[in-house]
Amino acid sequence: MKVKVVTRILEANDRLAEENRKRFQDAGVYVVNLMGAPGAGKTTLLERTIQALKPHMKIGVIEGDIVGSDDAERIGALEVPVVQINTGGACHLDANMINEVLDELPLRDLDMLIIENVGNLVCPAEFKVGEDMKMMVLSVAEGHDKPLKYPLMFRESSALVLNKIDLLPYMNTDMKKVRNDSLALNPNLKIFEVSCTTRAGIDTWAQWLRELKS
Amino acid sequence: MKVKVVTRILEANDRLAEENRKRFQDAGVYVVNLMGAPGAGKTTLLERTIQALKPHMKIGVIEGDIVGSDDAERIGALEVPVVQINTGGACHLDANMINEVLDELPLRDLDMLIIENVGNLVCPAEFKVGEDMKMMVLSVAEGHDKPLKYPLMFRESSALVLNKIDLLPYMNTDMKKVRNDSLALNPNLKIFEVSCTTRAGIDTWAQWLRELKS
Repeated sequence: MKVKVVTRILEANDRLAEENRKRFQDAGVYVVNLMGAPGAGKTTLLERTIQALKPHMKIGVIEGDIVGSDDAERIGALEVPVVQINTGGACHLDANMINEVLDELPLRDLDMLIIENVGNLVCPAEFKVGEDMKMMVLSVAEGHDKPLKYPLMFRESSALVLNKIDLLPYMNTDMKKVRNDSLALNPNLKIFEVSCTTRAGIDTWAQWLRELKS
Repeated sequence: MKVKVVTRILEANDRLAEENRKRFQDAGVYVVNLMGAPGAGKTTLLERTIQALKPHMKIGVIEGDIVGSDDAERIGALEVPVVQINTGGACHLDANMINEVLDELPLRDLDMLIIENVGNLVCPAEFKVGEDMKMMVLSVAEGHDKPLKYPLMFRESSALVLNKIDLLPYMNTDMKKVRNDSLALNPNLKIFEVSCTTRAGIDTWAQWLRELKS
């Protein structure tokens, strides 16, 4: 019974996501759904990415959080268009939430729209929002067991950014296991290693992202 | 419409949680619902806690994960009764899932049952499972903005274990802000600082937990 409810919700979501997608294509904007656990460093990676790409392309952002607007304020400080969605209790963004805020963004002026999902390794991977590409951030401090424990997000993502590599000397995270298990789930996954603190790897990552649009 | 569905599911869950709770009370077992984000260190804290408390009380464990049985195998190696629940797609445990596995545990022989929820800072806080006490683990590597971004779990928890404090010298997490924001949400929250790597703070934490039962 509960499964049926979930299926119905997902089907309705897929239809709305397709509508969003057409609207993004009409506007000529490439859309990225940025996912990851709480504290993986999604917003900080977004800041570094915007800093690297702003001279080359116009970026807009939708921030998804349960409550608050801290992240939108951080992104707004970089002088790019940003909208904050508060989901209330919901642990993920869905296509309808995105649809409701699209009028508040100058879509036709943008090259890329990055949607930062709610911090959660599970449900965001189930709900399409109309994106061209899903990606995820995993902090190396989360440990090497995450691909096998949360496989759907690794399967759904085109890119995996392994963040906080400056902390590797102080922990026993087995990066080879993270890579192998991730690629076993998704052989096409593109993996990047970065530190938003030292900025290691940011340029390589940002250049790859930039080329998706061109 | 969607809100109504969610409310109905939560009400049904509360009724089942109450049934579980009566069963736990009859068996004389104290039940802890252990929550936290992926990679916060829930399972490792559970290992350290069992090691500290095993000479003094009988502990059983229910492990909740989307897929896999890695965590149950880790706990089973400590020779305590353990059951693994795989939620499939669900991002949290609910009262029904717990109810279905209770026959597989020697409830009347246990002093304490610790239920490790799915790694997620959002939904586990909404679904009662029949517990006496909710608690959460937050890794200091997740950053100091988590209480204000995921307030419900901090409000619902009786104890907050701040884990991985051995990493504090290598990051800019403002522990005072974590404490202040957590206590502003929940003035009765009991806060512990631990490192499962160095074992700092484990004895203090375990002693507090042990006294809840007596």
